[in-house]
Amino acid sequence: MGTTQLEAVQEPKYWHLKTVLNDALDSEFEVGEILPNERDLAARFGVARATLRQALEQLELEGRLQRRRGVGTTVAPPRIGVAVGPSANVWPGAVRDAWTTIGCVEAVAPAPIAALLGTDPEQAVHTVRRERVTQGQPVATELLYVPPASVPGLSTLLTPAEHAPAVLDELHSLELEGEDRAVELGSARAEDAKQLDRLPGAPVLVVTTRYYAQGRVAAASVATYRADTCRLTFGDSGALEVMHEQPGRRQAS
Amino acid sequence: MGTTQLEAVQEPKYWHLKTVLNDALDSEFEVGEILPNERDLAARFGVARATLRQALEQLELEGRLQRRRGVGTTVAPPRIGVAVGPSANVWPGAVRDAWTTIGCVEAVAPAPIAALLGTDPEQAVHTVRRERVTQGQPVATELLYVPPASVPGLSTLLTPAEHAPAVLDELHSLELEGEDRAVELGSARAEDAKQLDRLPGAPVLVVTTRYYAQGRVAAASVATYRADTCRLTFGDSGALEVMHEQPGRRQAS
Repeated sequence: MGTTQLEAVQEPKYWHLKTVLNDALDSEFEVGEILPNERDLAARFGVARATLRQALEQLELEGRLQRRRGVGTTVAPPRIGVAVGPSANVWPGAVRDAWTTIGCVEAVAPAPIAALLGTDPEQAVHTVRRERVTQGQPVATELLYVPPASVPGLSTLLTPAEHAPAVLDELHSLELEGEDRAVELGSARAEDAKQLDRLPGAPVLVVTTRYYAQGRVAAASVATYRADTCRLTFGDSGALEVMHEQPGRRQAS
Repeated sequence: MGTTQLEAVQEPKYWHLKTVLNDALDSEFEVGEILPNERDLAARFGVARATLRQALEQLELEGRLQRRRGVGTTVAPPRIGVAVGPSANVWPGAVRDAWTTIGCVEAVAPAPIAALLGTDPEQAVHTVRRERVTQGQPVATELLYVPPASVPGLSTLLTPAEHAPAVLDELHSLELEGEDRAVELGSARAEDAKQLDRLPGAPVLVVTTRYYAQGRVAAASVATYRADTCRLTFGDSGALEVMHEQPGRRQAS
């Protein structure tokens, strides 16, 4: 009961090493500093390379370390607070938001998205790609799916450059009745990984949002956030500014 | 631009295998079914064991597979939707919520928590441990930190069993002015892992919540959710019920 009673828990060797490494990072290294190579680190802590590698992977998962190709393993800066879900309901792109629209295609949506939208799985939907850059870093990429039924007034004579703005404009003419979100762990698909400057399969936080209008789901989006550099924040923005600055960069222990 | 233009993307071998395996799971396996052993799978797909293992790890990350000690690798059921953050602000434990209180101790909070609370890092705070069970599964464990200043009327003569309810009761007498949350990726600490029936270091979603009263942070909590079985949902509860049932169990692709 509580936190002070330690019971015997199965604790792998790399887990103990992780704790030791974590303390060493606090006391001996600066943010951005490159760690010694694995051979030297394994020797210093008297562990096998495989054990060391597992501990490093854990610390990467927790956002303490970053592995960068051609650079090595560096001490990560604190994660960036990225606001998700404004307190007031707004359509994507309706106000100056943190996202940049890249383009739009008409394409058949993945089956789970068609199910979310309640559309025919074979039907093409407008698919707007957007990206989000925070503090100069690409932090998220998003696909916004809009069924044709939600944008009935859309012109059929649109250049590729006009497509995305026209879809968003039409969407904004609907009254947004509500939205809800789900956050889950995923792994970066090849195309998203490229946009986020990560390798395919890197852990990401996937935020699925449903937008409601006219009593049904009028649009849905799937946003993929880098899990290594982002903490997603929810709540009123005044308080969020403070959270941004808070020193706790890793899981409280 | 858009989703139809495929550019040459660096795609590791295990990534391609993952896609192939994913399709095989859809067409040939039922939820809960045990996969053939690694040797047989590697032979069937003509890949090295190491490549296979990486692909299995990816699918585990995406919630498609579960590895269970003594059982093997099974096809995972869809993730459970777990509502985080009710639309109305309420104190933890103030209404019948999804959490069970386990106990309370007075202990020095971890440094990042003390910073969140704005308390002296050396000061002991009331630390309430709670757990959350959904559909018979342990899905989350939580530590709620309450500084003594937030519960000035707390009796000093409390038995261990009375401690947690008394702290929560006192907290509820404050007017809750707001709350905000951050979600990030973490790895399960040994004690949390045990409670969640996972190995230490398993990926978890860490939800940090700040509760505001009297113009300051009156309490803070750190909840650790299983990342393999949970999708965290935010929004109004009416819509959430539907989301619960939605078929999209993995990242839309």
